[in-house]
Amino acid sequence: MSKTKAAFIGLGNMGYPMAGHLAKADFDVTVYNRTVKKADDWVKEYAGEHGGSSAETPAKAADGADIVLTCVGNDDDLRAIMLGEDGVLAGTGKGALVIDHTTASAIVAREIAEQAAAKGIGFLDAPVSGGQEGAQKGQLTVMVGGSEEDFAKGEAAMQSFAKAVTHMGPVGSGQLTKMVNQITCASAIQALAEGMNFAVKSGLDAHQVVDVISKGAAQSWQMENRGKTMVDGKFDFGFACDWMRKDLDICLDEARANGAQLPLTALVESFYARIQNQGGGRLDNSALFKLLNDA
Amino acid sequence: MSKTKAAFIGLGNMGYPMAGHLAKADFDVTVYNRTVKKADDWVKEYAGEHGGSSAETPAKAADGADIVLTCVGNDDDLRAIMLGEDGVLAGTGKGALVIDHTTASAIVAREIAEQAAAKGIGFLDAPVSGGQEGAQKGQLTVMVGGSEEDFAKGEAAMQSFAKAVTHMGPVGSGQLTKMVNQITCASAIQALAEGMNFAVKSGLDAHQVVDVISKGAAQSWQMENRGKTMVDGKFDFGFACDWMRKDLDICLDEARANGAQLPLTALVESFYARIQNQGGGRLDNSALFKLLNDA
Repeated sequence: MSKTKAAFIGLGNMGYPMAGHLAKADFDVTVYNRTVKKADDWVKEYAGEHGGSSAETPAKAADGADIVLTCVGNDDDLRAIMLGEDGVLAGTGKGALVIDHTTASAIVAREIAEQAAAKGIGFLDAPVSGGQEGAQKGQLTVMVGGSEEDFAKGEAAMQSFAKAVTHMGPVGSGQLTKMVNQITCASAIQALAEGMNFAVKSGLDAHQVVDVISKGAAQSWQMENRGKTMVDGKFDFGFACDWMRKDLDICLDEARANGAQLPLTALVESFYARIQNQGGGRLDNSALFKLLNDA
Repeated sequence: MSKTKAAFIGLGNMGYPMAGHLAKADFDVTVYNRTVKKADDWVKEYAGEHGGSSAETPAKAADGADIVLTCVGNDDDLRAIMLGEDGVLAGTGKGALVIDHTTASAIVAREIAEQAAAKGIGFLDAPVSGGQEGAQKGQLTVMVGGSEEDFAKGEAAMQSFAKAVTHMGPVGSGQLTKMVNQITCASAIQALAEGMNFAVKSGLDAHQVVDVISKGAAQSWQMENRGKTMVDGKFDFGFACDWMRKDLDICLDEARANGAQLPLTALVESFYARIQNQGGGRLDNSALFKLLNDA
């Protein structure tokens, strides 16, 4: 049986290993990246053993592919890479499927789905969680919006880099689910930061406090993975404040449309803006602690 | 070997089963409760098999006890039961130990410790987490402030109803640790409520969203135990909004003294005040969701 032809557009921290897992899962992968060096590195790392090549434009990468996967930075990048003159939809053939893994707005997902449908191309919005580590280990969680038929067609490709791939509903539902994730994370990190700041100011051993209270109702992934690191001032890893603010801005925009109330989320978004103003946008999103402790 | 004589003051949802575990662990327990009926019930339930009796005042219950444990409602109750004419310190003998399990302020803990010390009585502040279920199962987490010597003396009694008993530092440290717990919980519940409200308003299946996102960075005890129940409108169980507001007020008072910044905590405290104004003070503290969805 010949390999399924796939394209992967966007070899950032997430896309690079995701495209690698796809190649290892026996897809014939053509990659595209804005910075050519990254695409060359990828081909060097994977093409020897698993096959694969790079293309000069998204359109050329998508040409002839059965499945085109994308993972870029934000709504603007996504529109450019999808709808531009040399973009994905210009190169993708009728009957093929486009899967977008960018965390973006539901609005842009629906916009791209509509333009894809007009050309007979399927579309899934499929943001991921699990971070760079999850991408490297092939253990991402993928939240998918689109038709049943397109989901069935794209599931195997997504399984190559995931521990769970779930169909959440029509186009946009993947993005909306990811927004719930980010809304819940952001304020939980600030909650943790306030608790840890209070512990330090009270003269408690904050590490010991984490050990004790993470056994009960205060337990969370954030507490277990960021409680001690924030107290120790370690922020040079993880998920950047820049990205979290971008994601929260998408949530706040969507909430204006759907009527959800996000009082804490709005406040935490403003704290990320302060961190950016202080030059800390690249720090891990647990740098909310720094803001409380420095100010 | 004769049994260690203990007194237990305050047979509420927490104290009643805690005193029961103490009796089962072979302490000779005398109880006191403001509502006599509860004390009679307790004696009926435990005294047959394990021994134990009730007394007419805290002072009488404490008379002759090696260890006196208390668990009441708030700072005012605690001062009354400890420092009143017929209070614990009036009856407790020199060399005995008083352990308070109320969630109260660090200020009142230090105040009581000082008055106890003047009479040659030891004192530990030892608030618990784990809720009524934890108390019934003898699986509480106990956070303890006081001297090493008093901690050593009181540890066995506390182990009778706990899965973990940790010495956090000098008097007040137990209360301060519990405050970190409540600060972290309260805003995490509101974060979850905002996420779930957003999910509902977006037309997503909120139960499915919980299943998907509770595998990653948004995971928390609150999400696993309150995510679906809040969406289903179940609030007639758990930890009351009245109690959470009381605890947050203690945290905000303490923060004014120690300089910690608690912007989210202050906001969430105001939401609990709104719930109380609407007559929902007895609802579980996840009723924050109701506030977002009803308003």
